[in-house]
Amino acid sequence: MNRFITTLAIALLALPAFAADPLPSWNDTGPKKAIVQFVERVTKEGSPDFVPVPERIATFDNDGNLWAEQPVYTQLFFVMDRVKATAPQHPEWATKEPFASVLKGDMKGVMASGEAGLAELIAATHAGMTTEEFSQVVSDWLATARHPKTGKPYTEMVYQPMLELLAYLRANGFKTFIVSGGGVEFMRPWTERVYGIPPEQVVGSTGGLKFEDKEGRYVLRKLPNLVLNDDKDGKPVGIQRHIGRRPIFASGNSDGDLQMLQWTCAGPGARFCLYVHHTDAEREWAYDRESHIGKLYKGLDEAAAKGWTVIDMKEDWNRVFPFQ
Amino acid sequence: MNRFITTLAIALLALPAFAADPLPSWNDTGPKKAIVQFVERVTKEGSPDFVPVPERIATFDNDGNLWAEQPVYTQLFFVMDRVKATAPQHPEWATKEPFASVLKGDMKGVMASGEAGLAELIAATHAGMTTEEFSQVVSDWLATARHPKTGKPYTEMVYQPMLELLAYLRANGFKTFIVSGGGVEFMRPWTERVYGIPPEQVVGSTGGLKFEDKEGRYVLRKLPNLVLNDDKDGKPVGIQRHIGRRPIFASGNSDGDLQMLQWTCAGPGARFCLYVHHTDAEREWAYDRESHIGKLYKGLDEAAAKGWTVIDMKEDWNRVFPFQ
Repeated sequence: MNRFITTLAIALLALPAFAADPLPSWNDTGPKKAIVQFVERVTKEGSPDFVPVPERIATFDNDGNLWAEQPVYTQLFFVMDRVKATAPQHPEWATKEPFASVLKGDMKGVMASGEAGLAELIAATHAGMTTEEFSQVVSDWLATARHPKTGKPYTEMVYQPMLELLAYLRANGFKTFIVSGGGVEFMRPWTERVYGIPPEQVVGSTGGLKFEDKEGRYVLRKLPNLVLNDDKDGKPVGIQRHIGRRPIFASGNSDGDLQMLQWTCAGPGARFCLYVHHTDAEREWAYDRESHIGKLYKGLDEAAAKGWTVIDMKEDWNRVFPFQ
Repeated sequence: MNRFITTLAIALLALPAFAADPLPSWNDTGPKKAIVQFVERVTKEGSPDFVPVPERIATFDNDGNLWAEQPVYTQLFFVMDRVKATAPQHPEWATKEPFASVLKGDMKGVMASGEAGLAELIAATHAGMTTEEFSQVVSDWLATARHPKTGKPYTEMVYQPMLELLAYLRANGFKTFIVSGGGVEFMRPWTERVYGIPPEQVVGSTGGLKFEDKEGRYVLRKLPNLVLNDDKDGKPVGIQRHIGRRPIFASGNSDGDLQMLQWTCAGPGARFCLYVHHTDAEREWAYDRESHIGKLYKGLDEAAAKGWTVIDMKEDWNRVFPFQ
């Protein structure tokens, strides 16, 4: 391609988006203004806060930040459905906890099994298959599973304002990543379609894998061990392992995201840390300091102390879900 | 930006590169023809072999594939220099193997310590620092270290034809990744400048990390344990962990790359597997089946059996290093 055409094309693509408001589902309140100001500062050449395109890394938690996490994490609904679907091959589950509680639909019993029980459920439903088989199982489940409150597919339980924010950042040269406590293989089959985030930009909790030669049909089999628990302290670790750069923008909604925000905003130069605060019992859910899911306690205090931006979902978003 | 301008800009950027030969350091022999044919097949819309841009993943080994690995891996020279530089803080190393051999410049003694000794040397020189300190140490070392044979900086000991291949693939919508047995934190400080490959597209052997809060100055400290040995079976595992998609193009030069090539070329649709065969004792080195570094034995046989492309460095490249 000749140099003039290349330059023209790049110049056209670099034109700021004048036309429409890139964040129409955001009210003209503090968070929207702060986001737009930050993006203008880091993208304006010659500005002291200018950040070159390759360093415009933005990381987003998933559960409760890009999609809903109530009444429990979507992946937990998946786990329970998978236990039910595969129970015929495991007659011993009828009397073995936490499987028995899942099969009886006894959510309290499942929760009583604690983290160890949850780990056992995840291992039983996520390991043993090849990565390609697991990806198909996830896709098939998402095609038919429905959220218990709204009756919508889980991939529609995403926050419209965050979809706009992801697109707005990308239009301004940011590379957007997911950094989630959820399983990386559980997210990758659908994040590109739903969020425009390709598999290689998804960081998540990661299980072991084993390369197997099946007479020339090579596969990767999922193992039950965990090589990254991508939550709390694990988030900056996951970011460094996968991305190798400190983000300049990070968004989360719980204390599990606190270390990611600390890591992001302690770097030099312009930084943006964003918390989604669930304050809208009508359109979504209202929960924070004492929630069993997505607890936001230390994070609220630290955001106030450090001047991070906190989205008041009820006040700052004029729309929550795309279907509303 | 209005839709017409966007479309125009994207169309302009998508124009094929007519003008100059994108692979001038390649002779017009088999490998170059096979590469160009493959790229034309997978990028031609409507072709049965067409691959959408997001799936155009290409993975490259580093040592012996993008830069030289003789007389020993560059990272081993780094390790030895770091042992010497930090020896004053470790008087016990004077009599403790494998450190004593390093300090005496006794390469045979170092090699005699085997994999366990090497692991000990790597732990001693790579762990303990923060990721940012380590990155600086690597950059400082590369700025002054010189290759013992050519006297050139190691970052100039890169293969000009492979630089052209990386750029050619990217110009055709490929995302290029490094997948190397080398340390990920050792490569990331310079791969963007040297290869145009950003840190987030570097997969390598990976050590543990610990997030530390130093009174609000957050750091990630490097630990001595290994969470990914990105060699042999570890390469497809590293690809899946980081990229989450099977590549359609892979290039290596040793038996350590065999599983990456097997994994890549066993996928459905058009695939390209490439081996660099070191056959040029004059301009570079000649080694393969019995080499102590970059041994290529099984790989040569499997490439012949499966019809993979093998570069005969002496015959197929008219230039090896940029400085030649």
